[in-house]
Amino acid sequence: MQTTHQQKNYRYYGTLRRLLNRKAGPNIRKIVDKTHPADMAQILSYFTAEDKLGIIRYAKDDRRRAEILREMQLESAAEMVLLMQVPQAVAIILEMSTDDQADLLGSLDEQHANAIIAAMPKDESDDVQELLRYDENSAGGIMNPDVLAIHMDSTIAEAIKVVQDHEDVDMIFYLYVVDDHGSLCGVLSLRHLVISKPDVVIKHIMNPNVVSVRTEEDQEDVARLVTRYDFLAIPVVDDTNNLVGAVTVDDVIDVIAEEATEDFLKMAGAGEEQEENASAFKHVLGRAPWLFAALVGGIATSFVIRNFEDTLSTYLSLAAFIPVIIGMAGNVGTQSLAVVVRGLATRQIKIKQAWQTISNEILVGTLLGCLYGAILGAVGLWQFSGNTPMAFNLAIAVGAATATAMLLAALVASSIPLMFARINIDPAVATGPFVTTAIDILGVTIYFTVVNLLV
Amino acid sequence: MQTTHQQKNYRYYGTLRRLLNRKAGPNIRKIVDKTHPADMAQILSYFTAEDKLGIIRYAKDDRRRAEILREMQLESAAEMVLLMQVPQAVAIILEMSTDDQADLLGSLDEQHANAIIAAMPKDESDDVQELLRYDENSAGGIMNPDVLAIHMDSTIAEAIKVVQDHEDVDMIFYLYVVDDHGSLCGVLSLRHLVISKPDVVIKHIMNPNVVSVRTEEDQEDVARLVTRYDFLAIPVVDDTNNLVGAVTVDDVIDVIAEEATEDFLKMAGAGEEQEENASAFKHVLGRAPWLFAALVGGIATSFVIRNFEDTLSTYLSLAAFIPVIIGMAGNVGTQSLAVVVRGLATRQIKIKQAWQTISNEILVGTLLGCLYGAILGAVGLWQFSGNTPMAFNLAIAVGAATATAMLLAALVASSIPLMFARINIDPAVATGPFVTTAIDILGVTIYFTVVNLLV
Repeated sequence: MQTTHQQKNYRYYGTLRRLLNRKAGPNIRKIVDKTHPADMAQILSYFTAEDKLGIIRYAKDDRRRAEILREMQLESAAEMVLLMQVPQAVAIILEMSTDDQADLLGSLDEQHANAIIAAMPKDESDDVQELLRYDENSAGGIMNPDVLAIHMDSTIAEAIKVVQDHEDVDMIFYLYVVDDHGSLCGVLSLRHLVISKPDVVIKHIMNPNVVSVRTEEDQEDVARLVTRYDFLAIPVVDDTNNLVGAVTVDDVIDVIAEEATEDFLKMAGAGEEQEENASAFKHVLGRAPWLFAALVGGIATSFVIRNFEDTLSTYLSLAAFIPVIIGMAGNVGTQSLAVVVRGLATRQIKIKQAWQTISNEILVGTLLGCLYGAILGAVGLWQFSGNTPMAFNLAIAVGAATATAMLLAALVASSIPLMFARINIDPAVATGPFVTTAIDILGVTIYFTVVNLLV
Repeated sequence: MQTTHQQKNYRYYGTLRRLLNRKAGPNIRKIVDKTHPADMAQILSYFTAEDKLGIIRYAKDDRRRAEILREMQLESAAEMVLLMQVPQAVAIILEMSTDDQADLLGSLDEQHANAIIAAMPKDESDDVQELLRYDENSAGGIMNPDVLAIHMDSTIAEAIKVVQDHEDVDMIFYLYVVDDHGSLCGVLSLRHLVISKPDVVIKHIMNPNVVSVRTEEDQEDVARLVTRYDFLAIPVVDDTNNLVGAVTVDDVIDVIAEEATEDFLKMAGAGEEQEENASAFKHVLGRAPWLFAALVGGIATSFVIRNFEDTLSTYLSLAAFIPVIIGMAGNVGTQSLAVVVRGLATRQIKIKQAWQTISNEILVGTLLGCLYGAILGAVGLWQFSGNTPMAFNLAIAVGAATATAMLLAALVASSIPLMFARINIDPAVATGPFVTTAIDILGVTIYFTVVNLLV
């Protein structure tokens, strides 16, 4: 169904493309206005920034334009805003909620952002500047400041009036209850409003055990709380417990996807962020450091091999097995690394039970090492026999080196991230290139040491 | 804060441990009853299944026990149920919602599940068996069948009555509107109930453009729809458009996390599923196939090297550069692979724009290849000079081989997943071990071919 969805959107792209070439305004307007903004954003992603602008100018009003922009990737939306005249940009941005305004303005360069902010009405620009002060990865940075607060002494009827008077506030799931000082002291679900009698005083039915986060709380921790307790939104308070906003579940979903992407790319040593249309140069900058670490390790590996050049000159065929031995060790290491890094991220693996995890990985590494060591040893025997009288010993050496290298790879790859986690360093820093290169050095050292012992 | 949260829970673990050893029932009960079920589940995760059972038997009632069980990892909950007498298990399971019952029963072995189902009241067991028939990764498998449906001719007052009469139904965000035949024809948010007049007829204010999914829809597509449109729940219908349940946003969050884990582990060739406490043997089974593929590739690599043994015997120092060249190519390949696989999963990369993605990766691979090829060439010159009159040519060969291998690695690693996606195969099948092994073969072939050309 998703595929058909995407295919349908791609067909619309074709249609719009043709209509745009013919400058068929009324037809374009019909499509833009009848398509869900989320779908429209996807369709627009196939166009250049100029053409995107050419299309949305046919939308029925700035509210519609704002809805489409907020569904787009931030970078694409920012690119469009940069092409607009300031008054046009301001008109569209004013139709957005404050948190969306902050996200968009935060992704513009400072000069453009300031020009737009200066052209906004003072109360709106104050609100958005307030939000822009928060770290974009904190609760304050992802919260929506438009929340409905109600005094604890109010009645259900008064609360219903508040909801009726704020039709413009998106995504209301809870009413937050405050005391005389504006401090958060309880929460009431919309369902309470539906099922309670109008004259009931809120403090008697509210849930006083309201879980809240501070503005500076890390977005990942916010996401974990919302997920753990199955909340639809979590209130955000300042230092004095004053309610300043709420993070809603749709933002939490974005955070979870973003953090998963980050871990995924970190694991491969491909930088942290994935940006649509990021320049090749930016990609190079993100990836080069990990490759540099791998290069240094690789050069170290070459020195290890040169150290054993005498052995190698006697048994040249040993060279053929270098890649497969370090490859197998590297692969089993990557597996252990992935299981441990992801397990720590999802809290399925606990730091307190590190030893249990490591010993399990060692067991797995040993079993896999023995299995593939035996196979490679047999291949070695077949390859070496006839070429040298030491064929049997060499084959045993290949098998034993494979098994040892795989076992140690599992040990190294599982203990490094756990060690990092223990001392409060993000375990995802123990990236693939880092660990596999360490395993390369380990692998060739073990290989030639075992060979020297056995022949 | 999350850390403090976890630390607090770990402290509770210590306390409970001591209380359990002293069999201090009333104190245990106090902790179990005052702690949020989600936290209690985390605390229990530090205990053995027997001790978990020993602790929750002090909970105030079966409802509390059910709440704790549903917050636990499925495997741990199932392990506990297996230790219970059937009547005890049934009493707890009957306190769960039907979808939680189905999840738990579905993770037991068939014999135990059937024994429990047979001991349940007929109407409850019919409901859960109905759910168990759906694929666990489909909309039917993750939906909650307890939804509130209301006839389109009802009034707001009647709808409010329905909500009031179903206090036991969890997570109500929307009322789904059906026609005379039970077909889904609209949706009404709780907010509508709050702000509308009691005598308004629902069909006049409902949103008739209700997005629904079929029971057989893949859970990943359901998650994507909910995320795209920022829904809190999405209704599930059968072949005849009859409302049979709804998937709520908390389940969608679980799906997103699960799918990210799946991709993460697949990428490392570590099987698909991560299970807490899965046996080492199970891990071995999950990982062995990818390693086998790597082994076959590794043996192929060894044949390639043996093929060039004459060159190698003339210039033995070449062997020292094998690991670093295939390592650098493998790392740049893994980076491209991660960016493309994750980009396809998050729809930031589109199949229709494959050529753009591949050419970008080739450009990145070329830039990185030239950079690190130059460095490695210089290292080679330093290493070879003095040992052979061909030092300069060998160094050029090392540098050129590095650059070429890295460029081709980026090409291979980005085009394979895109090719898979194009023919509707999950791009994550192009796993790390698979691609890095292919790059190993490619790398040594390029290396020795370039050497033979230049010396």
